[in-house]
Amino acid sequence: MQIEFWFEFASTYSYPAAMRIEALAAERGATVAWRPFLLGPIFQQQGWNNSPFNIYPVKGNYMWRDLERICECMNIPLRRPSVFPRNSLLAARVAGANTEAAWLPAFVRATYQANFADDADISSPAVLERCLSTLGLDAAAILAGAQTPAAKDKLKALTAEAMERGIFGAPSIVVGRELFWGNDRLEDAFDWAARPGS
Amino acid sequence: MQIEFWFEFASTYSYPAAMRIEALAAERGATVAWRPFLLGPIFQQQGWNNSPFNIYPVKGNYMWRDLERICECMNIPLRRPSVFPRNSLLAARVAGANTEAAWLPAFVRATYQANFADDADISSPAVLERCLSTLGLDAAAILAGAQTPAAKDKLKALTAEAMERGIFGAPSIVVGRELFWGNDRLEDAFDWAARPGS
Repeated sequence: MQIEFWFEFASTYSYPAAMRIEALAAERGATVAWRPFLLGPIFQQQGWNNSPFNIYPVKGNYMWRDLERICECMNIPLRRPSVFPRNSLLAARVAGANTEAAWLPAFVRATYQANFADDADISSPAVLERCLSTLGLDAAAILAGAQTPAAKDKLKALTAEAMERGIFGAPSIVVGRELFWGNDRLEDAFDWAARPGS
Repeated sequence: MQIEFWFEFASTYSYPAAMRIEALAAERGATVAWRPFLLGPIFQQQGWNNSPFNIYPVKGNYMWRDLERICECMNIPLRRPSVFPRNSLLAARVAGANTEAAWLPAFVRATYQANFADDADISSPAVLERCLSTLGLDAAAILAGAQTPAAKDKLKALTAEAMERGIFGAPSIVVGRELFWGNDRLEDAFDWAARPGS
């Protein structure tokens, strides 16, 4: 039983989802296919050149408070990033080029923590290097690999695939042909995956 | 322990929320203050002259499928309204003028069922008359009352209050100074209301 977890490193609600999805999957006897993508091109198609949370500040205010409550309830730290949304291109290329690596989930979590707990600039190679090094990885080689044409194409392909699947926000979970949107739909997605015939 | 339930008769996710909130409140030993309002003026402030689910069809497609799953899970009927969003002005005036009536919750549910289960035009006085009559009420008198200046002003005041509280969508639940948005936040809102000091 496998679910696809589509996430964007700049996305606020992807943070709690990324932090809890592996434990939830283990509890449900499921596996997670990690699918990084970029929301920017998808938002642009809807006529937005910024996060809708910035374009619609009333909704943005709600989201920050809602996220605060969620993180408090999960007991994970939250510091509102001084820049939002942060440029997630390099981080997404690292993840896209290494979706099958055993260390990928830990890197994803470290990067979300850098962005949303430490207020670190995840577009900076130095910050990502730290996220990789603390996992005992060869950060320089991985970052170099993320800048190759193959890695760039891989992320483009993932973002195109997200669009094809009707994804319009993050996090999104795909189970077969069913799409679930939001940190608050993780349990529903696993329930769906557990249905007979899914 | 009381929570305010802010709803809009045209709003899709308000339908399952309205159908289940009383039972949930009873289970939690809480009471519900019913707060009808209009989303139209709030959407207009965000530059929208239509439902965002129509303006952004990818998101709209997802919403209809998501709603289908939710209604299936709750075992309540859903027929996608042939007109969306339906004009909810008259229904909201009826509700706004009768927020304290004992029959209000039943009228709210009947009206949501008309819109989302029977595909009936809830802007039609005949449809609302039916919703009221089946509850044994004097439909003609209630509908006449909903057209008075006082009833019109009441709904305007409720919509203005919704804006002041930072409401941008429906359903929304207000617990003291905390705002919760969405059918999927009902439980969280009741949890918050049950916190010591709330």
